[in-house]
Order: sequence, then structure tokens, then C-alpha cells
Amino acid sequence: MKQFDFGIVGLGVMGKNLLLNMADHGFSVAGLDLDQEKANSLEKEAEAAQDIKGFIAAEKFISSLKSPRAIMLLVPAGKPVDAAIGSLLPLLDKDDIVVDGGNSYFLDTERRFTELAKKNIHFFGMGISGGEKGARFGPSMMPGGDAQAYERLRSIFEAIAAKVDGEPCVTYLGKGAAGNYVKMVHNGIEYGIMQLIAEAYDIMKQGLGYPDDKIQEIFESWNSTELQSFLVEITGLILKKKDEETGQQLLTLISDQARSKGTGKWTSQDAMDLQAPVPIIDMAVLMRDISKYKEERVEAAKTLTWAGEVETDTNTEMLKNALYFAMINAYAQGMVQLRLASEAYGYGLNLEEVAKIWRGGCIIRAACLEDFRKAFIKAPELPNLLLDKEIGASLVARQKDIRAVVKVAVEKGIPVPAFMAAISYFDAYRSERLSTNVIQAQRDFFGAHQFERIDREGVFHAQWE
Amino acid sequence: MKQFDFGIVGLGVMGKNLLLNMADHGFSVAGLDLDQEKANSLEKEAEAAQDIKGFIAAEKFISSLKSPRAIMLLVPAGKPVDAAIGSLLPLLDKDDIVVDGGNSYFLDTERRFTELAKKNIHFFGMGISGGEKGARFGPSMMPGGDAQAYERLRSIFEAIAAKVDGEPCVTYLGKGAAGNYVKMVHNGIEYGIMQLIAEAYDIMKQGLGYPDDKIQEIFESWNSTELQSFLVEITGLILKKKDEETGQQLLTLISDQARSKGTGKWTSQDAMDLQAPVPIIDMAVLMRDISKYKEERVEAAKTLTWAGEVETDTNTEMLKNALYFAMINAYAQGMVQLRLASEAYGYGLNLEEVAKIWRGGCIIRAACLEDFRKAFIKAPELPNLLLDKEIGASLVARQKDIRAVVKVAVEKGIPVPAFMAAISYFDAYRSERLSTNVIQAQRDFFGAHQFERIDREGVFHAQWE
Repeated sequence: MKQFDFGIVGLGVMGKNLLLNMADHGFSVAGLDLDQEKANSLEKEAEAAQDIKGFIAAEKFISSLKSPRAIMLLVPAGKPVDAAIGSLLPLLDKDDIVVDGGNSYFLDTERRFTELAKKNIHFFGMGISGGEKGARFGPSMMPGGDAQAYERLRSIFEAIAAKVDGEPCVTYLGKGAAGNYVKMVHNGIEYGIMQLIAEAYDIMKQGLGYPDDKIQEIFESWNSTELQSFLVEITGLILKKKDEETGQQLLTLISDQARSKGTGKWTSQDAMDLQAPVPIIDMAVLMRDISKYKEERVEAAKTLTWAGEVETDTNTEMLKNALYFAMINAYAQGMVQLRLASEAYGYGLNLEEVAKIWRGGCIIRAACLEDFRKAFIKAPELPNLLLDKEIGASLVARQKDIRAVVKVAVEKGIPVPAFMAAISYFDAYRSERLSTNVIQAQRDFFGAHQFERIDREGVFHAQWE
Repeated sequence: MKQFDFGIVGLGVMGKNLLLNMADHGFSVAGLDLDQEKANSLEKEAEAAQDIKGFIAAEKFISSLKSPRAIMLLVPAGKPVDAAIGSLLPLLDKDDIVVDGGNSYFLDTERRFTELAKKNIHFFGMGISGGEKGARFGPSMMPGGDAQAYERLRSIFEAIAAKVDGEPCVTYLGKGAAGNYVKMVHNGIEYGIMQLIAEAYDIMKQGLGYPDDKIQEIFESWNSTELQSFLVEITGLILKKKDEETGQQLLTLISDQARSKGTGKWTSQDAMDLQAPVPIIDMAVLMRDISKYKEERVEAAKTLTWAGEVETDTNTEMLKNALYFAMINAYAQGMVQLRLASEAYGYGLNLEEVAKIWRGGCIIRAACLEDFRKAFIKAPELPNLLLDKEIGASLVARQKDIRAVVKVAVEKGIPVPAFMAAISYFDAYRSERLSTNVIQAQRDFFGAHQFERIDREGVFHAQWE
């Protein structure tokens, strides 16, 4: 029976394309997927010179591999990885290698390494970036953990990796879950840059009033400057794409509710444990979250309006109003968290009672808590204090002043991240449409992650190029 | 033998003052602390009418309590709580109540509840806020969990709680760890407001150039406006306080390296899990973290300077520079996280290699990665890319433009949290002195958390009033 050099478990977008990439480089590769269609389609897509085969039964797949075996998992992070390892484990032999090529949480990788080491199976995590096209023609790969096992597979990975100046974009990075960790931070930075690009787009569209084709030209031209990067490049391409049916720019038809798979969130959360400040990533995670509050944003857009002039200087009275504005936002954000925690953890909280017992004794006691209490008496299900009529009006009246204060601080170089967080949260929350549709388009471009549209139901994937 | 109504374990600042508060209200209370001095000093401080006693042996303490017993733990969150429960448990009987009055992590409370329920011990978590003075004369208390057990103790807690319009600042909040969760979010909001006040102070001091006594007067006067709150009030008092030895304003002698105990961080991290956006809290946690990077900030203050004029409008070229500036900051932040993760988790990462394999194939590939690689070749231990001479200079040259872009966005009401995070991170990082000394002073004021000084070694506590 034919024995293959390498085995891949999970023939989704990433698995299938990595397999074809390996086959391009002369390796024989077997693929396993429980989905018969995926296993079959693999062989149909193969070119004559490619030595590949799809399986739907783990036993046959495993016995088709050269010993000691080299197997890579490309299945969704979390339980599917444990399930895949669990089903393969009884079939594996000492010295076989299992590589997890997905976006696994780094602590899961540490645990799996320990479990598999007990059975003399080599295990390591390797983050892979590049999306569909990268997987097919050259990704960047971030392996870490079992250095000897990596060494055995190095020639395969170096062959399929992207090359820059002849150097492969793969190298052994470090011990333990180093590979998954580096990939996690990679994704965090990716979140940050995608959000920055979306904001730059928004400034051109809303702030400068540029037409769509001008914005497209700008992004395209930026890719020939110091901004040269994959994400700037694809943004130029995204802006070019017309919807086939309506002829409109596809981007404007994409929903602004951005999805995420959690790697950005993990980056922010672990950065906090390490006391590593990553505020751009934090804010990128945050904006995807705010984008979910669509109904509230539509509501807020009606009441929390802005079309004023901002003073060029500030004074004590304006600063007082700015501080009040920001304080109210801090309480409002905390109250939203309590509402969501109560739902998620089954606490059954009554926010009016919370406001009531915070009015005295505690460190955050303040006159405004009485206003919050009244707001929750009026509307116990109020999703956000900003939607209360009186509180909203008191913020609308003061927004001019916090804008002036932030302006002065940014001009003078004074760090005011919390004041900025107050006004940017307010502006995001009162945006009926956010620029997060750019993020949805980018995710679909590089990862085939699909998107919703504003003009019809369903999920969609576009051929962007 | 005398039988006491209530027992308190841990006679630190909070435990001792809560005990005296209970005694004031006619309850007889026993206290337990392994520290003989603390146990003894308790009785010395008692007034004639107070019926209290300090113990150093758990057995004697437990047998001194009326049955079924009511015991509250006031020990540091984490292992000390488990240790205290572990040492009491063999001595407890069915139907005894144990209340955790500390800032325990809410998932720990859930676990402890389950463990103790198996032994028929009632357990609930109750966050307590108010600091030293609140504990002594009326705190706000946030109980959750075992409603029946709370009901048995309600009269004690209502007696000692702060009152507003005759209503006690304590009420049963909800199931499970609801009490600890509400207290956690309370502390997160506290972080946010403290940071906002520090920023307002900084704007007056650096931005408006107000003298210290004018700033003091302003904070004092603000407490009679809609800003009326405990934190604004104590800031006015803090600004008044003179150092006894030097006669200088004490605040200016306090180190800007702010400490924290983790509740703000937990709030941010769990908010991300819930997709509850709490950016003001996130930024408050962040600024305490940045404040720790003192040596780097001193270094950065020399090279990343700013004293320019900002344009009143923006254009495509300026926006390009702003995006570049922000992108570089996003990578720099991620690289710092990788360096700290490598130290914390023992990965042994080489950041030059990381930059190298990110140059191609991956989603965040960009021309600037070659610059980062060169920076790490020059200085493998570089703590932050912002400290590289060339990269620093390229940011200094572009800061004018990101300042203009943020200014325009804030004037027009366009949400740009990530651009703002870039410039505020940059401004914080290049600040030799941050306004986080205000936060240190506030923490010492309300919680006796102590502070470091810039003019001498050691930790200090001030009598602020």
C-alpha cells in the first residue's frame, strides 16, 4: 500500500490549501475529513503531478502514512482539537508527530503537549497565517515547542512557506506554546491594523467627504509608500469591488456588525496579565464588540446628536463638563457589563438596587447615582444609561466641552486615554453605521470568513479579485 | 463562657474597622488574627460600651461564637481565603454561615460556594467598599449568593451600612457570585474615575499651566457641583496636603508608579468575554501598567519630544502619516507583549526572528517589518521599538499629523478609538512623569494602600485629613 509523507486532518479552507501547497513541492500527502464531500473534492482538485489522497476513516488515513508519522491538525480551535487528538491517539505509535496548525489558545497547547508527551507522541503548536491564498502558495508559519520534532519536519515547512529575499517565513520560535502565542499576538496586531484602516477610511468618508473612488485610489496609492502592507493592499482592492447584481460598491452593502474568533480578545486579556499595554488591540476588540449593538446604536443616533463647533481652547468650566461627561460614560459602561454578566451568569441583578447601594459608603459614591437610580426605576430594562432621555441630554449638552479638552490635550501632547475612551465610546455608540464593514470585508477577503449584507438576509462570500 | 453574635477573621484595616462598627451598633463581636499584636490591639481600641474580643487561636475563636455561627472573612483575595476556609472548616457545624468580605475573584466564590454547600455550610461573597473610614462608620456592601443565609444576617449588615435618605447601602443583589461581581465592576468604575481625575489634573497642570493652589480650589469647588462625589472630594483634600518635612505639596513628592490589586484588570478581562465595551476601565488599567515602565519613559522623554503646532485640518498626506504612526505603535505594543510573554512563560523568543518570518506570507506582512528586524539586529534586548533611534525619529516626524487627524475626528464626532490609543500610548510612554501620582495618593487616602516617594526610599502612608 502507498505510504504518504505527511497527513493533514481537517480539509477546510486552510487544511486543503496547505495540503495542495505541500503536494506542489513534491511531498505526498494524505488528508482526512469526516465530510465525504471534502475528502472527495480534494482528489478532484489535484493536478496530475500531485500525489495526494483523501480519507474519511481515521484508521485508513493513519495506516497510509509513513512511520514515524507526521500529522497536522487544521480543525477549529477548542474542543474540535481535543476531539481530533482523542480519535487519532489510539492509532498512533511512539515517535509520531502531531502538529496543531490552528489558532489554539496557548494554555490548551501546553496541556496537550503534556498529555501527549506521556504517550511518547511529539506534539507542537504552529500558528499559520496567510489565509486561503497564503496557505496555498506560501504562508508564514510560527512553530514552537518540541524542537526535535520540528527539526524532522523543517524541510517540508520551509518548502511550503512564503519566501522573502530567499528566506523562508518559518522558523522554530521557542519552547512550550511559543508558536501559538506568537500567532495570537500576530492576530492581535492584525485586529489593530484592520481597525486603524477602518478609521482612516471613516475619516476620508465622513470627515473629509471624499467620494468612494477617490478613497479607493488613495488606498491603492498608499500601498506604494511606507504603508506598503497586505492589509492596505487588500483594502484598495475591496474598495474597487462592485456588487454584481446592483452595481453598487460592495463594501457599502456589507453589514457593520463585525465578527471575531477570539484571538484578539485573548491577546488583550493576556496582555493585561503581563502588564503589557496594547491599547490599539484593546480598542480594536472593543469596536468589534460595539458593532454588535446595532439596535441600540440606531436608537442612540437619534438622540445623541452632534453637529457643533468646538472651541480652540479650554477652561475650568469646560473641563468640569468634560469630566462629568466622562464619569457618566464610565458608570454607563460598568452598568452594561453588569447587565450582561447578570444574563450570562444568572445573577438576576436589579440595576436600580445596585445604583441605590452605591449612593453612599462606597468609593464611587456620587451625586449622579441618584439620577441612575431614577433612570432604572423608569425603565428597569434600560440597555444603557446613555439611552435615558435626561442623562442623554446632559451628555449632549456637554460633548462640546469634552471635545475641546481632548483637542487641547492632543495638541499639547498630554496623555488622556480615558477622556479619549469616553468620547470615542460615545461617538461609536451613537453611530448608526460604523466603519466596521471594512473589517468584515477584509476578513472575507483573506480568510473567506463571509459577511452579512444590509440589503438582504443570509451570509455571503465575495470573489474580491 | 461568653458567646459572641458575630466573628471576623482577619483584623487588618477592613476587618478591624468593620468589627468596631458592628460593636458600635450593639453587636458582640469576636475577631481572629494569627498576628498576636493585631488581636491584642483590638481590645485596646475598644470603647467601654463595645463588647469585643480578639483571638489568635481558631478553636477558641470558633467556640466563642453563638450557634449557628456567623463568620466573615476579611483576608486578602486568593489563596489566603482558601487557607482561612480550610483552617476553619473542621471546626464548623451544619448551618454555620461563612461570608467572604474581600475582593475575591467571582469564579473563586462560585467554587467555594459549591465546596462548602457539600458540608452544609452556608457561604456567600459580599463585596465591601468604603475603605478604612467606610468600614468604621458605614460602608456600602454588596452581598450575593445564599439568600437565606443573608436574611439571617441582614439586621447586622443593615445596621452597620452607610445610609442615604434613611436607606441602608446594602441589599441582597442576586445569585451565585453576584456580590463579588458587582464589587468587581464597582472597582473597575473606580479605576476609571480615578484615571479621569488624574487626567483632568494633568490638563490643568500641564495644559492650562494652573498653579497647584488654583487646581486645589477647583477640585474643592467641583465637589459642590454635579461632580459631587467621594473621589472628587478627596482629590481636593489631597491637593491641600503639605509634606510635613519639606513643606512642599505632598502629591508632587509621590511616585507616579501606580499599583493595583487586580480588580480593575479582572473587570476589563471579563468584559471582553461578555462583549461589554468598557474602554474607560481598560485605559485606566493600562495607564497603571504604563506607569510601571519608569526607566523606559525617562529614556523616551528624551527622544520622543513634542512642542509643535497642530494644523486645524487634515489631508490625504497627513492621514497617511497618521496611519503609519499608528501602525508602528500597534506593532511596537505587540512586540512588547511578546517580550514579556517570553520572560513570563519561558519561551526564549528572538524578536528578530519573529519580525523576519512576519515579513512575508502572513496577514500583517508590511514593509516596516524589515525596519523592525534591523532594529532587533542592532539591539536584541530593545525593550520597545519606539526606543529605536530611526523608528523613534520616523514617529516624531509624523506625530504632528496624527494629532491633526485625531483633532479633526473629535471635532466631527467620528469614532477613532484606535488612532486615539496610538497617540495617547505614545504620549504616555514619552512622559517622564505621569499624573498617576494622583492615583497613588487617592489609593492611600481611602485604603491606606501606601505610596513611594520620589525623594526617598521606602513606602509611606499619610494622614491626609
